[in-house]
Amino acid sequence: MRVVCIPTVGETPGAELAGKTVLVIDVLRATSTIITALANGADSVVPVETVAQARQMAGASDLLAGERQCRKIPGFHLGNSPLEFVPDTVKGRRIVMTTTNGTRGIHKASKAAVVIAASMLNARACAEAAVLFKRDVVLLCAGTKDAFALEDGLCAGLIVKEMRNLGTEDIQFDDLSIAMEGAYLAYEDRLAEILSRSDSGVRLTRLGSADDVAYCAQRHTISILPILQDGNMKGAAPKIL
Amino acid sequence: MRVVCIPTVGETPGAELAGKTVLVIDVLRATSTIITALANGADSVVPVETVAQARQMAGASDLLAGERQCRKIPGFHLGNSPLEFVPDTVKGRRIVMTTTNGTRGIHKASKAAVVIAASMLNARACAEAAVLFKRDVVLLCAGTKDAFALEDGLCAGLIVKEMRNLGTEDIQFDDLSIAMEGAYLAYEDRLAEILSRSDSGVRLTRLGSADDVAYCAQRHTISILPILQDGNMKGAAPKIL
Repeated sequence: MRVVCIPTVGETPGAELAGKTVLVIDVLRATSTIITALANGADSVVPVETVAQARQMAGASDLLAGERQCRKIPGFHLGNSPLEFVPDTVKGRRIVMTTTNGTRGIHKASKAAVVIAASMLNARACAEAAVLFKRDVVLLCAGTKDAFALEDGLCAGLIVKEMRNLGTEDIQFDDLSIAMEGAYLAYEDRLAEILSRSDSGVRLTRLGSADDVAYCAQRHTISILPILQDGNMKGAAPKIL
Repeated sequence: MRVVCIPTVGETPGAELAGKTVLVIDVLRATSTIITALANGADSVVPVETVAQARQMAGASDLLAGERQCRKIPGFHLGNSPLEFVPDTVKGRRIVMTTTNGTRGIHKASKAAVVIAASMLNARACAEAAVLFKRDVVLLCAGTKDAFALEDGLCAGLIVKEMRNLGTEDIQFDDLSIAMEGAYLAYEDRLAEILSRSDSGVRLTRLGSADDVAYCAQRHTISILPILQDGNMKGAAPKIL
């Protein structure tokens, strides 16, 4: 099994994803939010690329969610803060969601055999699933505006560490995976602080969303795996995979 | 002063380099070799992109050097191993050189105000010069075949650490610079081992060049800065800048 890390959505090698497991990582905030929504009882999350597609796709009983420039889209029920996706709001609902980088990453990955939304919150569950599936793995860091985002790289590094901890011997990690594992190990004792100093962390803090950054810096608090099936992300717990 | 790290030559933002200091990093092996050649008395190194250009450019008294797929080019005097560039061979000579990634990176950077060849060998001198110049800094990791190379990223991280150690307060490091600094800090105590496990390190070791990898993993052994001037790289010591 080979594990490669892609630094931004723009670098996604679409044609090379066939047959692989892709973990799409957008820690601040799209994948953290999708994971939280499903953990809190949402039926499913439908990731779409544009605001127009989201409005067209959403039925009367659906929730519209998403952001542009880190802000809620006018007329939508929800923005992109995981703290909004509480059980009272999302339980049983289908959520149609569009974000700048994360949902784009999920679309770019759609030719893969398995597409999972990954974040710090479910990193251990993602690592366990990736090893169980026995397919080559792509750690797809969404990034921000086609630039590398620190929080996504550190999450990739955390997943590499967790995969290594599972003790499977025949996993080969590529150069960027090894670099990200090192970066994670260097910062793991002060992850929330480092995330708050990343470009995205600084921007969110300035917009009053410091609580989101702290929430998304938590590790292994959720075991649900949002898996893409027919355009929907549905939650699966590792044990039923 | 802002410091950004670019993961591969292919990602070089050519138009955005004007007015900046660019440190081109190709640890295995082009920039390590250029630095060694100048430290050992070569007059200058002329980086060119193609084998044909190298042959055309080289006069009777010049040395032709370079590699394709890590191997010496037929008919050239030298390959791309820094251990070949000893004083007896290079002293006083102009060297016309072409490599797959490193010389390409130098060409891509040529619109910058200052272009310096950087490696582990002269990392501290590079950090000191970058701070002295008071320009925004681009750490341009050459990479391999448009993929990130671990050794280049770790060298970028080492330069970040050295810049931070200089105690200048108003330096902003971008997300990838911070990640690479973390990766360097995680691996600094076993750098030669980690380099030998990188994709390039494994390939070079297989080709019988393990000594090159060990040589290029040395830090701060050379204080010469190869600076691009009119298409030539000439050595400057930090004190005369």
